[in-house]
Amino acid sequence: MLDQTALPETVRYLDYTCPEAVAQAIKTMVVRGAPAIGIAGAYGVVLSARQHRGLEEVAYREQLMRDAQMLRESRPTAVNLMWAIDALLPVIQNTPREQVLTVLTDRAKTIHEEDLAACHRMGQLGAELMPKGARILTHCNAGALATAGYGTALGVVRSAFEQDASIQVFADETRPRLQGAKLTAWELQQDGIPVTLICDGMGASLMRQGQIDCVIVGADRIAANGDTANKIGTYPLALAAHVHQIPFYVAAPRTTIDLSISDGEAIPIELRDEAEIHSIGFERICPEGIAFYNPAFDVTPARYITAIITEAGIARPDYQTSLPTLFLP
Amino acid sequence: MLDQTALPETVRYLDYTCPEAVAQAIKTMVVRGAPAIGIAGAYGVVLSARQHRGLEEVAYREQLMRDAQMLRESRPTAVNLMWAIDALLPVIQNTPREQVLTVLTDRAKTIHEEDLAACHRMGQLGAELMPKGARILTHCNAGALATAGYGTALGVVRSAFEQDASIQVFADETRPRLQGAKLTAWELQQDGIPVTLICDGMGASLMRQGQIDCVIVGADRIAANGDTANKIGTYPLALAAHVHQIPFYVAAPRTTIDLSISDGEAIPIELRDEAEIHSIGFERICPEGIAFYNPAFDVTPARYITAIITEAGIARPDYQTSLPTLFLP
Repeated sequence: MLDQTALPETVRYLDYTCPEAVAQAIKTMVVRGAPAIGIAGAYGVVLSARQHRGLEEVAYREQLMRDAQMLRESRPTAVNLMWAIDALLPVIQNTPREQVLTVLTDRAKTIHEEDLAACHRMGQLGAELMPKGARILTHCNAGALATAGYGTALGVVRSAFEQDASIQVFADETRPRLQGAKLTAWELQQDGIPVTLICDGMGASLMRQGQIDCVIVGADRIAANGDTANKIGTYPLALAAHVHQIPFYVAAPRTTIDLSISDGEAIPIELRDEAEIHSIGFERICPEGIAFYNPAFDVTPARYITAIITEAGIARPDYQTSLPTLFLP
Repeated sequence: MLDQTALPETVRYLDYTCPEAVAQAIKTMVVRGAPAIGIAGAYGVVLSARQHRGLEEVAYREQLMRDAQMLRESRPTAVNLMWAIDALLPVIQNTPREQVLTVLTDRAKTIHEEDLAACHRMGQLGAELMPKGARILTHCNAGALATAGYGTALGVVRSAFEQDASIQVFADETRPRLQGAKLTAWELQQDGIPVTLICDGMGASLMRQGQIDCVIVGADRIAANGDTANKIGTYPLALAAHVHQIPFYVAAPRTTIDLSISDGEAIPIELRDEAEIHSIGFERICPEGIAFYNPAFDVTPARYITAIITEAGIARPDYQTSLPTLFLP
C-alpha cells in the first residue's frame, strides 16, 4: 500500500502479509477513502486465506470468518468496507475448501477493478455537470488515493479537466488530518490541474464573493433518502452552497449507498483520537488538560445535495425514489 | 506586550520603545484582536511622541502624524485601530507643544481603561442572554488577549460563568493561525471554564445534534447595517446557526462599529501571507508549487446576527436603526 500518512513528503509503499496488519493500516489511515478501504479490506481477507491455508477445513473457514469480521469492524462509517467484506462471506462459507483462496483472490481483484471502472464512468458522467471554466470547491480527498484510482469527486475533476483545461480547484485543507492539503493538493498537482489550498472556514466566504461555481465531494455512506455521511466539515459547505445557490454534488460508487438505512441518523459516526486535533506533526497546538471532540464525519441532509453522481447514472431528488433505480439491472 | 505568537507554550513579554516596532508587532500579530490593536496603536503614537521629543515643533508634529498614519495602516480590517489613532490626531495637531506627550499618554491610557470597562459592561449585559447551562460555541479569540482585558465574547462567557458554573465552551481552533486552540483554550483554562476544542468544520455538526445553545464571537468591524467582519470562518458558523435556529451573537465595543460605511461590502478584507496556510510551526502540510488564498476575515450579513452586544446596550435588528442609538448621549 502507498502510505498515505507519509504524503506528500514521502512516497513510500508498505507490504502487508496478514489481515491484522491490514486492519491496523485501515484504522491508522495508511489507507483511507471509502472505496479504498473496501478494496483493502477485501485483500485483507485474501491475506487471511493465504496465511491460514494450512488449517483444516472447519478451522480454516472459522478463522477466515473471524478475520473478515475484524476487518469489517476496523472503521465504522464507510459502508464500502462492510459491503466488500460481506461480498466475500459466501465465498468463505460455501466455496470448496481448495478453491477458497483462488476465488477470494479473484473476487478481491474484481472489486478492485470494478471500482476503477466505476470511477472513470463517474468522471464521464459528472464532467457534464461542470460548467466551462468551473471553479470547483472540494473537501478532503475523494481522489485516486481514496479509490482504486482516478477518484470519485476528483475523477469528475480529472474528466472535466481533460475536456476543459480552464477549470480550477479550491481544496479545503480538511482538518484535523489535512487530507486536502496533503493528498488532494498533491494529487491534482501531479496531474497539472490548478489547485488553490484554503482553510476549511474560507469556502463560504469564497462562495459569497461569487468565486465558486460548484462543490463536489465524495461520500462514506449514503442512506436511502440521500442523506450523506462524508468527512467532517462537508455539512457546513453544503449549507453555504445552498444559501448561495451553488450546486453541491456528491460523487460515489453504488457501493457507498446503503439502502438498508432510511436516513442519516442511523449512520454510525466514528469518533477518533484527540491527538489528531491537539497536535500537528510534532507541534502541539493547544494547552494540556482541555477537552476535545473529534468526529471523523458529518451527515449532510439530502435536501442540500443537488445530485449524486454514480457509475450507474446521476441521481437527483427525490433520492428515496431515484437511488433504488441505480440498482436496477 | 504579552507575545501572543508564543502562547500557550511560552508566556513572554516584549518591550517596545518605538512606533515602528509596535506597527510590526501588530502586523505579525504579537498583539491581535480588534480592541487590543487599537490600544497598541495608541501607545505606539505615545512612543513616537517620546522618541522624537527633541524635534522642533513643526517637525515634531509632522513626525507624529507620519507615525500615526503608519500605525493606522498596519492592519486594514479592524476599525478600532483607525478609531484609536484618529482620536489622537487632534492632540498631535492642536495641543501646545510641551503638553503633547502628556496628553497623548493620558488619552492612550483612557482608551485602554475604557476598553476594559466596556468589556465588563458587555459581559454583564451579554450574560443575561446565556441560558442556564449554556453550551457556547466561539470562534477565534475575543478574550482578554484581544482587548484591554476580560474580553468581548469571552467577557460574556466569563460573566455568565460567574453566575452559572454549569456553562461550557466549544472553541473552534480557528485556522490558519489557531487562535482558538492557542489563545481561547488557554484563556478559558486559566479561569477554570470548561472548554472543548474542535476543528472549524465541526461546529455545524454539533449544532445539528443539538449540542450548541448559542454562538458568540467578537468583531473587527461592524457596518451601519450590522454586517460584521470577523475572523475567517465566522460566516459559515453564522449560516449553520441560522439553519438550526441557534442564536448568533456578536460582542464588540462601540469602537468596532463603523457607521461611515453602509454595509459589509465596503469593509476591506486583509489578505495575509500564504505561509500561514502552508506550514504549522515547522511542519509544512502541503506540497510546494500550489496556490493559496488566505483572507484573514469574512463578512457575516446582518440578517444572520441575532443581536450585537455592546457596552452601551444590546442592539437587535433592524441594525440600521438600532446601532445609531448606541451612540446617543
